[in-house]
Amino acid sequence: MVSFIDKGKFAYAYSSLDEADIVMFGAPYDFTASNRAGTRFGPQAIRQESYTGIEEYSPYFDMEINELKVHDLGDIELPFGDKEHSLRLIGETVEMILRMGKKSVMLGGEHLVSLPALNVYADVYQDLRIVQLDAHLDDIDVLYGSRISHGTVMRRIYERWNEPERIWQVGVRSGGKEEFHWAKSHTKVFPFGLHEFLDEMDLLCHYPVYITLDLDVFDSSLIPGTGTPEAGGIFFQEFMQFVMRVKELNWNVVGMDIVELSPELDPSGSSSILAAKVLREMLFLL
Amino acid sequence: MVSFIDKGKFAYAYSSLDEADIVMFGAPYDFTASNRAGTRFGPQAIRQESYTGIEEYSPYFDMEINELKVHDLGDIELPFGDKEHSLRLIGETVEMILRMGKKSVMLGGEHLVSLPALNVYADVYQDLRIVQLDAHLDDIDVLYGSRISHGTVMRRIYERWNEPERIWQVGVRSGGKEEFHWAKSHTKVFPFGLHEFLDEMDLLCHYPVYITLDLDVFDSSLIPGTGTPEAGGIFFQEFMQFVMRVKELNWNVVGMDIVELSPELDPSGSSSILAAKVLREMLFLL
Amino acid sequence: MVSFIDKGKFAYAYSSLDEADIVMFGAPYDFTASNRAGTRFGPQAIRQESYTGIEEYSPYFDMEINELKVHDLGDIELPFGDKEHSLRLIGETVEMILRMGKKSVMLGGEHLVSLPALNVYADVYQDLRIVQLDAHLDDIDVLYGSRISHGTVMRRIYERWNEPERIWQVGVRSGGKEEFHWAKSHTKVFPFGLHEFLDEMDLLCHYPVYITLDLDVFDSSLIPGTGTPEAGGIFFQEFMQFVMRVKELNWNVVGMDIVELSPELDPSGSSSILAAKVLREMLFLL
Amino acid sequence: MVSFIDKGKFAYAYSSLDEADIVMFGAPYDFTASNRAGTRFGPQAIRQESYTGIEEYSPYFDMEINELKVHDLGDIELPFGDKEHSLRLIGETVEMILRMGKKSVMLGGEHLVSLPALNVYADVYQDLRIVQLDAHLDDIDVLYGSRISHGTVMRRIYERWNEPERIWQVGVRSGGKEEFHWAKSHTKVFPFGLHEFLDEMDLLCHYPVYITLDLDVFDSSLIPGTGTPEAGGIFFQEFMQFVMRVKELNWNVVGMDIVELSPELDPSGSSSILAAKVLREMLFLL
Amino acid sequence: MVSFIDKGKFAYAYSSLDEADIVMFGAPYDFTASNRAGTRFGPQAIRQESYTGIEEYSPYFDMEINELKVHDLGDIELPFGDKEHSLRLIGETVEMILRMGKKSVMLGGEHLVSLPALNVYADVYQDLRIVQLDAHLDDIDVLYGSRISHGTVMRRIYERWNEPERIWQVGVRSGGKEEFHWAKSHTKVFPFGLHEFLDEMDLLCHYPVYITLDLDVFDSSLIPGTGTPEAGGIFFQEFMQFVMRVKELNWNVVGMDIVELSPELDPSGSSSILAAKVLREMLFLL
Amino acid sequence: MVSFIDKGKFAYAYSSLDEADIVMFGAPYDFTASNRAGTRFGPQAIRQESYTGIEEYSPYFDMEINELKVHDLGDIELPFGDKEHSLRLIGETVEMILRMGKKSVMLGGEHLVSLPALNVYADVYQDLRIVQLDAHLDDIDVLYGSRISHGTVMRRIYERWNEPERIWQVGVRSGGKEEFHWAKSHTKVFPFGLHEFLDEMDLLCHYPVYITLDLDVFDSSLIPGTGTPEAGGIFFQEFMQFVMRVKELNWNVVGMDIVELSPELDPSGSSSILAAKVLREMLFLL
Repeated sequence: MVSFIDKGKFAYAYSSLDEADIVMFGAPYDFTASNRAGTRFGPQAIRQESYTGIEEYSPYFDMEINELKVHDLGDIELPFGDKEHSLRLIGETVEMILRMGKKSVMLGGEHLVSLPALNVYADVYQDLRIVQLDAHLDDIDVLYGSRISHGTVMRRIYERWNEPERIWQVGVRSGGKEEFHWAKSHTKVFPFGLHEFLDEMDLLCHYPVYITLDLDVFDSSLIPGTGTPEAGGIFFQEFMQFVMRVKELNWNVVGMDIVELSPELDPSGSSSILAAKVLREMLFLL
Repeated sequence: MVSFIDKGKFAYAYSSLDEADIVMFGAPYDFTASNRAGTRFGPQAIRQESYTGIEEYSPYFDMEINELKVHDLGDIELPFGDKEHSLRLIGETVEMILRMGKKSVMLGGEHLVSLPALNVYADVYQDLRIVQLDAHLDDIDVLYGSRISHGTVMRRIYERWNEPERIWQVGVRSGGKEEFHWAKSHTKVFPFGLHEFLDEMDLLCHYPVYITLDLDVFDSSLIPGTGTPEAGGIFFQEFMQFVMRVKELNWNVVGMDIVELSPELDPSGSSSILAAKVLREMLFLL
Repeated sequence: MVSFIDKGKFAYAYSSLDEADIVMFGAPYDFTASNRAGTRFGPQAIRQESYTGIEEYSPYFDMEINELKVHDLGDIELPFGDKEHSLRLIGETVEMILRMGKKSVMLGGEHLVSLPALNVYADVYQDLRIVQLDAHLDDIDVLYGSRISHGTVMRRIYERWNEPERIWQVGVRSGGKEEFHWAKSHTKVFPFGLHEFLDEMDLLCHYPVYITLDLDVFDSSLIPGTGTPEAGGIFFQEFMQFVMRVKELNWNVVGMDIVELSPELDPSGSSSILAAKVLREMLFLL
Repeated sequence: MVSFIDKGKFAYAYSSLDEADIVMFGAPYDFTASNRAGTRFGPQAIRQESYTGIEEYSPYFDMEINELKVHDLGDIELPFGDKEHSLRLIGETVEMILRMGKKSVMLGGEHLVSLPALNVYADVYQDLRIVQLDAHLDDIDVLYGSRISHGTVMRRIYERWNEPERIWQVGVRSGGKEEFHWAKSHTKVFPFGLHEFLDEMDLLCHYPVYITLDLDVFDSSLIPGTGTPEAGGIFFQEFMQFVMRVKELNWNVVGMDIVELSPELDPSGSSSILAAKVLREMLFLL
Repeated sequence: MVSFIDKGKFAYAYSSLDEADIVMFGAPYDFTASNRAGTRFGPQAIRQESYTGIEEYSPYFDMEINELKVHDLGDIELPFGDKEHSLRLIGETVEMILRMGKKSVMLGGEHLVSLPALNVYADVYQDLRIVQLDAHLDDIDVLYGSRISHGTVMRRIYERWNEPERIWQVGVRSGGKEEFHWAKSHTKVFPFGLHEFLDEMDLLCHYPVYITLDLDVFDSSLIPGTGTPEAGGIFFQEFMQFVMRVKELNWNVVGMDIVELSPELDPSGSSSILAAKVLREMLFLL
Repeated sequence: MVSFIDKGKFAYAYSSLDEADIVMFGAPYDFTASNRAGTRFGPQAIRQESYTGIEEYSPYFDMEINELKVHDLGDIELPFGDKEHSLRLIGETVEMILRMGKKSVMLGGEHLVSLPALNVYADVYQDLRIVQLDAHLDDIDVLYGSRISHGTVMRRIYERWNEPERIWQVGVRSGGKEEFHWAKSHTKVFPFGLHEFLDEMDLLCHYPVYITLDLDVFDSSLIPGTGTPEAGGIFFQEFMQFVMRVKELNWNVVGMDIVELSPELDPSGSSSILAAKVLREMLFLL
């Protein structure tokens, strides 16, 4: 049984759970973070910024969030320090949302929270494709002796199908040698920038797509508030090119998550405002 | 009667009030800020950085500020919490400067400080054109029940003429739906970037131009130290293209302001140094 | 008509408005602050800390907050920059709470928010006594040309009765010469520490008492997160002596407020946790 | 097999492992922290401050650390997110140190790291007494569904003996109702201050004593850099009274730990310098 | 020839240089700091806080600063990196002030700035006594190969007279073994607190006294914004006991300095406000 | 005799001094910094970030640092405040490294540390060419009365040869008028960006090249943690173009330094992570 904590909901989540098409929740999990923890505060920071840091209206889409039907469940109450139990609770939450015929939007938390969500989506959507915007591959086999970690998420998901075209890794620019070599023959890798990826996006038109966005895909100048900021990343203008292209191609986006905001690392609050704005634009893709 | 506080003047304001061509002053006003206040400290932060954070020389113009004649009045002593009185004092200051045949450079404060300044300029210059570099339109009619607010400045100014070509809104990328729709038919809007604007700048050659620069027009990575940093903004290189183009076209710039620096939000001090540098380059346009 | 914003309620406010004995609300007002603004974020910071920064149980009282019946209305939605309207909304809120036969607990905001609350209490309780814990007297007659300001609150309240024994000013250690001299003959002043005050507290046993606590009464080492931290203040141990003495004397505390937390000034979060803990202990006095 | 990371050793740990009487190591563990994580950086912050933030000489003891024989193993390399394995590695490290006939000084990490250390000490010393300086009891039975957590440490240790005089809990002032009631009949509790404890310290003269010091026992003004700073704590002067009294009574201190420094929460670095100084003084007790 | 930079004067320094009895200046020197530099910003931080962080009136003395005649010269323009030249400029400034028959108040800068000032005072006042409030002795003979350093100031001054009763070192609690042993037989040392010192203060009634106050004499909880904050220091209440006692004994205070504020280390600004308040109270001793 | 302090070595410096091809050391010198000091903490911040902030593998080069042979000497122990002695120690260190037939990589410190290193290299390599990536020219003749300062480094080096093609100044965009005019006829200047420089890089193929990289060459959005962040700089993508071009042209890079990281100015840590990443990529050029 999953319970949720309400420390203030997303400002523009006006719908009840029943009415909603899109169900948002927070997974305040950061127990396997190997560098600077603090992503547990990510979902709440995004919500608090939704009141004053962003507008409801997107001038890019000329739409307001109230044209969508969004519900916010709050943050899952997680047993701190208990990885297995926490991941199970996240999985159950996503499952509940899909069973109700809705789409899930998860706010992390470290990237490991994507694993249970992706597993549920892979169960439900046979043809699922995953688009991962991220500075890191997260393709490690075993990290610090563990197969279940923020650095191994994509490797574990890959093993569900063992098919190279399933996972698209975009904007990646940091990782181990083995990871990068493994990725070449097991996933579609678009390192450093979005240019080539934008050209190939039409290949995903006929599949259900789950987008997992690790905020460190952005250049470190935009997002100092994340565990491992990486220079050489994408800028917001490029990100909007991606978003507008998804809309144009009319992708079938079935779910998404936005992870790795660590708000306390950026005392200016600018990273949290960015994350809230990224969420706003991505909601219009659902 | 306006009085001024001197907590340290701009380092390169060598002229007496009488000698000066350009008169600078601070309007430390942030009483209607709806998000994070603190722009009252903006003018003083710019002045303190002028001593060590910037050089007097611009390699872009190959000029030093001492080739201009600048006087700094200090900060207007404002009655905290009293909006009407504060705006009146700002207006009186600008009026005094124009009556002496000089140009005013105001350092904000929130964007509402531009309203009394623009009103004085509109009285004096019949053909005035306003170029607003800003992430936000500030075209709201009524905000929190008030017609006089940082979010309504441009709407109020528009009403002086009710002519669509008067106000040029550049770099805008945040606001409400109604604002954006209103702007389409009432102002000249150049959203997101400067490209199209740069192409049309020659149209303003024969008018007196007032430039109001809200620092949040810059990308949030450059200016975390502002009330609502907005990703997707302009970079310094683009800004200098604008500045050099003004020089090239020999615009008749009659006054300007730089607003919305909130220095304490950026503990690195980088936002304040940027603002000081922006001020230096813009002084060469007067 | 007052409306309230819910960005997350106080964690231990379990009661509905009808059931409650104690009704808490936030007054996020900081428009007349003459130094560093930011107390508008005070109420929300206290609420967020209530989830993780404090326990529900007080070892001092051996009681849990759930033994009280507390409701949290959220923050009043204030018209930024409009002083008169804002104060009116605060007054209406307190009036509504008293009419329902409940006690109000207001979270500031700057100290000016106490003025409308105290006015309502003075209307209802003829014999009202006010105990003000504060580093500052707030006894100025006119500040920056205004009679209604955070520095004039106690002077205005005094004028309702013009009786010297009504207002007890405790822990005060900063202000102007005129203020301190005025206070000597118009209020009961206990400067610097609590010692003498503790001895005289029994004099207030037979009156309805409103406690207004400006967090800067604490030593600056405990509360850097306030507009004007003042060294030489009280420590938490002394504060608890006061609280325990109120309980012991069985004072009739009819209402209270806790003001001047400016959370963003203290990046460690320690000031907000202190404020939440002070609130917890003071709730047991109602 | 335990491996250690060397990111810079304690400045005054001059001895080789063989020569040393005192062996220090870091346990950078913070996976069950329910509030703000970051104690994993504690050991390293103490070491870095040992170079410039403290002197080698204690004017209290008129001694230098070089009069002791200290070795620093570095930080245990922990598998992030794996609680059981991490605790096992900590236990093995302490066991190794005791087997070599030396005393262990562990730097945390969250308070859970004390559990495996205490278990080893309890195995070796039949008569062990534990002196816990802490704001929190850590006497919870089950926290977030888990019996092994930073909040349950003392409860678990108690169960080894089920004898009330074994654990002395000093300076405690925060916890749940149940915890405080349980403690009354199961441990020796000295809440709020050290006065009574100082009077009874002679009772421990004939026992081997392990001191576990949670830095939040200090007043929040001294240690904002900890997960849950608590006002109303002890000051450094009181702490030194305790330390001098241990020396005077010639206690048989057989091991110790200092936990819960979360250095990034205090940008001034003052909390880390305090921790380094506390460590220096406590080393003279071994 | 000394030149001064004016980045904003002390708010209550109303007198011209000619009229003044007290002449204040900043010595923004921190070139030999061995830990965290940044005291060069100390004088300016104190001045900026004088506008909003403190009142002109002291309730302790029931006096306003305008009852004194204070002039502020600004900061000496120092050649960065050139120790000898910098110290010479400081000495010349103090000499000029004394020649005009006025008293100097120097704002540091690191403690080395006291050396040239003390040398000038020692030349002028044969019977000079020095009262040093400080966490550190600064009695080292040679530090990092140099005899002229922030850690050697008092040793160098001692050598002018080689008389043990000249220098009173109060509140000291950190240093090397050699320093502490040397001090025992060469200066009057009052370690840790002020108690004994307060009892002996009358011995200095008949001497000209120079007070040099290193802000780290205060407890680290009050002054995180200094190079090496030291726990176990004095609180503001104790400091005011000292100040009031000087007044009571009618000491002949001939000059003073306040050093080692490093404002950027304390983002809350609380340390700078404390320093400004300490300055206010000490001015009344001149 | 130079001695070194070890507060933790670079994580990937696996070689002994004898085995190594590349010898890294820190020069924690910031005594002539005229603005914000703190670069003395630069080398140590880069080392600490090497453990968790960067990977050993570069996806740009498809190489790991372990394919190089790197030794880290630690930080030179410098006599604080003694410029001449400090520079001599730096020079001796570089000389020792070159005599052993190895290449030196120095981590600053302020830019003045490059002067002794460049002098040694100029002695050894007759044909030396210097590529300086920097926001500032550092071509001043005399700064604050001194010929040896962070702002005069390149002028002094120029005087060794008095040949205009020796020094290439890239990305420069801040300085005095005189400096910029002097540079035009004495060095090769590539202001603002890298475009023209990239085109001319082949001219340096046949010379031994020393690269001195002042981190403020990067845009201020990437590196707020430096003394004088300058907007309008290069982004990481452009930097990698330069790095890849060096590799492609097979330049003979004989030594390098990375200077002006001031880690404490950027509380997010992002600047230090950038510097560590820049170091990693530049190591592959040796």
